[in-house]
Amino acid sequence: MATHKVVLQPSGLTLEAPTGALVAEAIQQAGLELAQPCGGQGRCGRCAVLVEGGARRRSSLRLSSEDVQAGYALACQTVIEGDLTITIPEQEKIERRMVTDKAAARIGLPFPYSSDLQGVHAFRLSLPEPNLQDNTDDLTRLSKGLALAGYSQVEVPLGLIRRMGETLRQSEWSPWVALELRSWSRPDGPPRLLDLRADPIEPLGLAIDIGTTTVSLHLVNLSSGEVIETAAEYNSQIAFGEDVISRIIYASKNDGLSSLTQRVHQTLAMLLERIQKRTGVGGDQILKAVVSGNTTMIHLFLGIPPAPIRVAPYIPTVNLPGLYLAGEIGLPINPQAVVDCLPGVASYVGSDISAGVLACDLATTDQLTLFIDVGTNGEIALGTRDWLVTCACSAGPAFEGAGVVDGMRATEGAIEEVWVNSTSYEPTYRVIGGGKPRGICGSGLISLLAELFVTGVIDRAGGVKLDLETRRVRQGEHGPEYVVAWGAETETGKDLVLTKVDVDNLLRAKAAIYAGFTVLASSVGVNLANVEQVLVGGSFGKYINVEKAVQIGLLPDLPWDRFHFLGNTSLQGTYMALLSLDQRQLLAQIARQMTYIELSADNNFYDAFTAAMFLPHTEIARFPSVAEVWERNGAQEPVASGGDPKS
Amino acid sequence: MATHKVVLQPSGLTLEAPTGALVAEAIQQAGLELAQPCGGQGRCGRCAVLVEGGARRRSSLRLSSEDVQAGYALACQTVIEGDLTITIPEQEKIERRMVTDKAAARIGLPFPYSSDLQGVHAFRLSLPEPNLQDNTDDLTRLSKGLALAGYSQVEVPLGLIRRMGETLRQSEWSPWVALELRSWSRPDGPPRLLDLRADPIEPLGLAIDIGTTTVSLHLVNLSSGEVIETAAEYNSQIAFGEDVISRIIYASKNDGLSSLTQRVHQTLAMLLERIQKRTGVGGDQILKAVVSGNTTMIHLFLGIPPAPIRVAPYIPTVNLPGLYLAGEIGLPINPQAVVDCLPGVASYVGSDISAGVLACDLATTDQLTLFIDVGTNGEIALGTRDWLVTCACSAGPAFEGAGVVDGMRATEGAIEEVWVNSTSYEPTYRVIGGGKPRGICGSGLISLLAELFVTGVIDRAGGVKLDLETRRVRQGEHGPEYVVAWGAETETGKDLVLTKVDVDNLLRAKAAIYAGFTVLASSVGVNLANVEQVLVGGSFGKYINVEKAVQIGLLPDLPWDRFHFLGNTSLQGTYMALLSLDQRQLLAQIARQMTYIELSADNNFYDAFTAAMFLPHTEIARFPSVAEVWERNGAQEPVASGGDPKS
Repeated sequence: MATHKVVLQPSGLTLEAPTGALVAEAIQQAGLELAQPCGGQGRCGRCAVLVEGGARRRSSLRLSSEDVQAGYALACQTVIEGDLTITIPEQEKIERRMVTDKAAARIGLPFPYSSDLQGVHAFRLSLPEPNLQDNTDDLTRLSKGLALAGYSQVEVPLGLIRRMGETLRQSEWSPWVALELRSWSRPDGPPRLLDLRADPIEPLGLAIDIGTTTVSLHLVNLSSGEVIETAAEYNSQIAFGEDVISRIIYASKNDGLSSLTQRVHQTLAMLLERIQKRTGVGGDQILKAVVSGNTTMIHLFLGIPPAPIRVAPYIPTVNLPGLYLAGEIGLPINPQAVVDCLPGVASYVGSDISAGVLACDLATTDQLTLFIDVGTNGEIALGTRDWLVTCACSAGPAFEGAGVVDGMRATEGAIEEVWVNSTSYEPTYRVIGGGKPRGICGSGLISLLAELFVTGVIDRAGGVKLDLETRRVRQGEHGPEYVVAWGAETETGKDLVLTKVDVDNLLRAKAAIYAGFTVLASSVGVNLANVEQVLVGGSFGKYINVEKAVQIGLLPDLPWDRFHFLGNTSLQGTYMALLSLDQRQLLAQIARQMTYIELSADNNFYDAFTAAMFLPHTEIARFPSVAEVWERNGAQEPVASGGDPKS
Repeated sequence: MATHKVVLQPSGLTLEAPTGALVAEAIQQAGLELAQPCGGQGRCGRCAVLVEGGARRRSSLRLSSEDVQAGYALACQTVIEGDLTITIPEQEKIERRMVTDKAAARIGLPFPYSSDLQGVHAFRLSLPEPNLQDNTDDLTRLSKGLALAGYSQVEVPLGLIRRMGETLRQSEWSPWVALELRSWSRPDGPPRLLDLRADPIEPLGLAIDIGTTTVSLHLVNLSSGEVIETAAEYNSQIAFGEDVISRIIYASKNDGLSSLTQRVHQTLAMLLERIQKRTGVGGDQILKAVVSGNTTMIHLFLGIPPAPIRVAPYIPTVNLPGLYLAGEIGLPINPQAVVDCLPGVASYVGSDISAGVLACDLATTDQLTLFIDVGTNGEIALGTRDWLVTCACSAGPAFEGAGVVDGMRATEGAIEEVWVNSTSYEPTYRVIGGGKPRGICGSGLISLLAELFVTGVIDRAGGVKLDLETRRVRQGEHGPEYVVAWGAETETGKDLVLTKVDVDNLLRAKAAIYAGFTVLASSVGVNLANVEQVLVGGSFGKYINVEKAVQIGLLPDLPWDRFHFLGNTSLQGTYMALLSLDQRQLLAQIARQMTYIELSADNNFYDAFTAAMFLPHTEIARFPSVAEVWERNGAQEPVASGGDPKS
């Protein structure tokens, strides 16, 4: 057997390797470390290296076409066939590349808004000091000064008149003013005074996404577009029900509505306090807010009874809210700030989806696009710039880390990705922030479920196989469970587990979403195989692993390069509408043009949902790439394509 | 001596009377009753009778020229010189004539507003019921319905959206709506939804006058102009100071501003409760409010710190407030109702005076007019349609019955007019409502002070003569006092008195006002004798007796037919502005055009004030008609014209 010369960079080590040896084996032979958390199964992509010379790639799973083009290969899946040079990148470089590759979160990237700012303008104004001859009142003096600066007939709210006398005198008649120059509701109206201070004013705004489970926001500099800070937290309404239906029911009880309204305002107040601690920016300095959310969340935020949303013919009170003042709503920012709740489409497709469609450029694309926003309410849009249909389905909060024993939000301490060794069943995981784990976030749960499935720890119906030779699988308090991290490794000192109940929750969530887009597609006669791009949004943190989402049957089995994970698209679209009047108007147009399809009136949905309650699906033939991996890893229970594994 | 035949009607009695007998003597001779509370001095006007035939009028004091023309004469001042017929009117007819004659309160009179209504319109709207096909949201459905009815792009406030779902369904999709069609700040703007109900809506508004001492309001039907109810009460801020300066000082203390703001809102809430008890109209049914008041009162009502008003250069924060919502201000009416605080002129000439000028037609007259609004702050305007100067002076609350031991507002139980017999010093009084007296209101105090002065009970410096032969004058708890009503006659069972301290308060009040208009007139070179009409406003109840106001030196000594008492002109102008956009705009123009003259910077004012601290004035020659009456009644201390009685 021929041997070949292998040079390892950056160490410069050289060795001989026979034809047919794996690159991974050569690296290990040289005594170098190489991460292989999946056990050399070509599933995790963590052993990616640069290869120049004689080598054959057996599989390039987890590598993007750009990476392959650049010379990357998976060490565990690449066979040596000639002399070659192998460059082992630093581990963190791989991580960074994998993240940015899959997660095209555009937050903070250059954004063309300057020409059409919604227009909050702050500047210092010089006024003549009054005397016994020039003794006009403060308000008239200020109005004259603003008119001289080019802003005539400025509307001044009572709240600012109340502190005008003191501020003008404190500032020695040179106050800072903030004006709202225009808004979508009155593009040609007179300017409005938003703030008046003796100290300098910076024009700051908030983009807020109110999810059923998670509330997220950006603090934004309205003149530069910079995202100064981001924060997210569970919606504390969660104590009164996990999904929108239970919230609506709660809202119909005595004081239920005001409790729910208070809860979401408390959550926002907490996030604003957190932002203040980190940045020093107080709520009263925030001069504008744009808010997205599903229709029920927006009703509750505004204190509007949501009851009619739940009963046929499912009529919300408002899809297109007007502009209201923060003080009127009770949002603890500058009480004069305008709060713009973005337009939604129908009772179950809210402004989170219209903002998402804006953010993912679906309204301007020629490509047939499937957009899936994975949240407690899964919302789906399908179409092109010329037509758009949309629907919603209730997934539950599992993908947001809620309703799962060791679930948590995608913040520091969350396990966000897991690999399970096919033979030892030992896990390797990555923790956000790099410290000890505290729980598992949505992307971690998807990853963990996929790994447990393809390694055979969990069967296709979600059953945990208790007879495997590993301590990781055991009978726990809540039934069978898999231990992801032993107490000794965790921050809390307790084992982190995934229980059978958790698995069932995850199955229901993914089944609802899969059923949603398949029924939507078939209702308009679209074959999913013809979808040119699949855009995935959700508040998962930095990214979800598309491969694993396909493996559990959450996403359709299409070529990977058709998938793009866009992060929290609702928040992203809200951010765009906050900055740009043009984008705000485009969003309104999107909301008007989307055709809503009511799944609850469709029996096909329930059939599709039931069929999707398996891993990856009752008909495994719908997921050929998954079937291949699963069988290669030693599927213990092969099932005929199209058959029901339980039958 | 010749005798004459005298026929008395309506009794038909006939008798003989000699030449030179008084008509009053003839009536008494016939055994008929005739009211002569002043003791036959020709001062009270209560003995007015119709006289046809041979008679000579010695004096027609208290009779208008129309009354004289119609044949009325004072029985005590009319000498028989030939045969004659005397008709004794019913007592109540005299009262009514005297009141309407002197008090041209125009409230409730026809008022030409219909062509230019500020425009609150209420009607019932029919909407199509939603179904699964026609499933647009409630707000869009309502907006479409309004557009079909001719009102497009109606602005809908959040407060109404909050109850929209329930109201539309309760009304079975035929709700009542109230729209504000236009307002001065946006005559061409889109309509605004004010109310939405399942029950019929009547368009109701409030005209509010916030005085330093008294708060008055009218509940008005905005489509008919009818004043449905009127109510007035002391401003409960009075506990924190009697005049605007002490209120401003109080407002500068910790929480002082919010206490004062709360107090005036509490007073308004109490008045609204009273109105609700009487009419059944709840605050939430009131869809518009227009408010006048002096500049400090408006600042406190709106929660604006008034401190700069008090210090040179005397700059208020706002003379021309915008339109604010009731909910924002805290006025307990429909929170969506617009509250329009009328425009003022300067720190000490507020919208009470601009509303008063509107109400008294001063802005459209060719006659040289002196307008005096007697309140805690006396406000004065002088001019014609072509020019107007204005000033203010602090009179204190005495004329509103406050700060006086037995003072009260002009409501049921208040003594509103007093006559004192010149020889017995016994009083006769008229009580509002006709029952037992509880106190003395402003007009009663003016009347009492004048009577005590002309009958010699009080000297020109305000001293009470304790040596008179009457039990009415005595040394009381608070010094010398005159007993107007014994405890046996009063509702409280306690004596009602006027003390020396009260007299001093009244003297200061009248001196401030007299000094105000005399200095104002001389500052623009106007001789008061050339003033063609003197218009007097104030919240005195139905009227003040002009004669007596002249006797105490509150008003200048001009022919009586130049005086017109107009009642609460501030409230009247506010009512006009509530109903009519044209009147509202005229009022704004009045406020812009008035020239304010600051008396506090004028030493002449203090000199004039000091000179006016006597009855009627240091220079009695300024009041020839008063000097005549006073001397006829037996002046005990004639003083050389122009001299100081104390020197």
